[in-house]
Amino acid sequence: MSKGNDLYSTKTMHSSELLSFMYGSLMVRLTKDFEDINEINKKSEEIGYEIGFRLLDDVLDELGKNLHTSNLINTLLLSLLNTFLGINGDLNQTSEKEFHYIFQKNPLAMFVELPEHLKNLCYSNIICGMIRGLLENANFKVQCSFEKDKTKGDETNDIKIVLVEIIEERFIDDED
Amino acid sequence: MSKGNDLYSTKTMHSSELLSFMYGSLMVRLTKDFEDINEINKKSEEIGYEIGFRLLDDVLDELGKNLHTSNLINTLLLSLLNTFLGINGDLNQTSEKEFHYIFQKNPLAMFVELPEHLKNLCYSNIICGMIRGLLENANFKVQCSFEKDKTKGDETNDIKIVLVEIIEERFIDDED
Repeated sequence: MSKGNDLYSTKTMHSSELLSFMYGSLMVRLTKDFEDINEINKKSEEIGYEIGFRLLDDVLDELGKNLHTSNLINTLLLSLLNTFLGINGDLNQTSEKEFHYIFQKNPLAMFVELPEHLKNLCYSNIICGMIRGLLENANFKVQCSFEKDKTKGDETNDIKIVLVEIIEERFIDDED
Repeated sequence: MSKGNDLYSTKTMHSSELLSFMYGSLMVRLTKDFEDINEINKKSEEIGYEIGFRLLDDVLDELGKNLHTSNLINTLLLSLLNTFLGINGDLNQTSEKEFHYIFQKNPLAMFVELPEHLKNLCYSNIICGMIRGLLENANFKVQCSFEKDKTKGDETNDIKIVLVEIIEERFIDDED
């Protein structure tokens, strides 16, 4: 009972906390499975990609009538990050193809301090994977990475998203 | 957009879905790490124990003034299962020391169908571990297991909780 009620006053926060512990358990497994930290970063991103890809239908459902196709990338990103992950950040579009999502509190890393030997771990890389998977399922191929990361001592969290390609829908003709 | 909005109409459900995917990723790792299914069941229970143990403070915070010490086990169980895990079930006390939590929808197993070679997997055993950890941190030593499990073809989910011992607080005297 050491923590103030104000920190845990919403249902979303409770789930975030559980999510944080669950993700921590997954990261423990990954650090046991792979010695190379680059492999862990790659694997957690891939896991995120699978999750993000599968979440698209539910993100679209959640948006419902608030889905604005004129600004689809922003809308999808904000739904995923704010509503699904419960992060309270700001999305800035810095050029036609570049976006930055800036936030202070990372729900996945609430209790995380990286030890020296894991200082190159992108602890929350799963979020980058989720963004890449979600947007790729919506036909936007992006690159995504943490530009700044508080678990690495930066003063804020900054996820950079760069649009690489808009994937055209391909309709395969029958051969006969 | 294939699913109805009614299924995903609350923030808690969104988090549950993400939690379900995250847990699925953890289970995939465990099935890769351990060949013996009993080992996987044991490991997921242990992970749950750690999480449940750490959640006690937050469960107590959430309960606040609704904490009834006369019926502490029931109160803690319902807070964990209903509020934190978002399960909508019923807790029945069948004897002085035995409780059953009966529920239909398991948020961790929303998308799970066990293949034949994993039919002995207690997929959601992490929940049993969470119950054991939470209650042990509150000085109740319990045994906990799935009596019925829909992922194994049962018609409902039934988690059995048996109180084994009330752990007495031990105050160690200084030697001098």
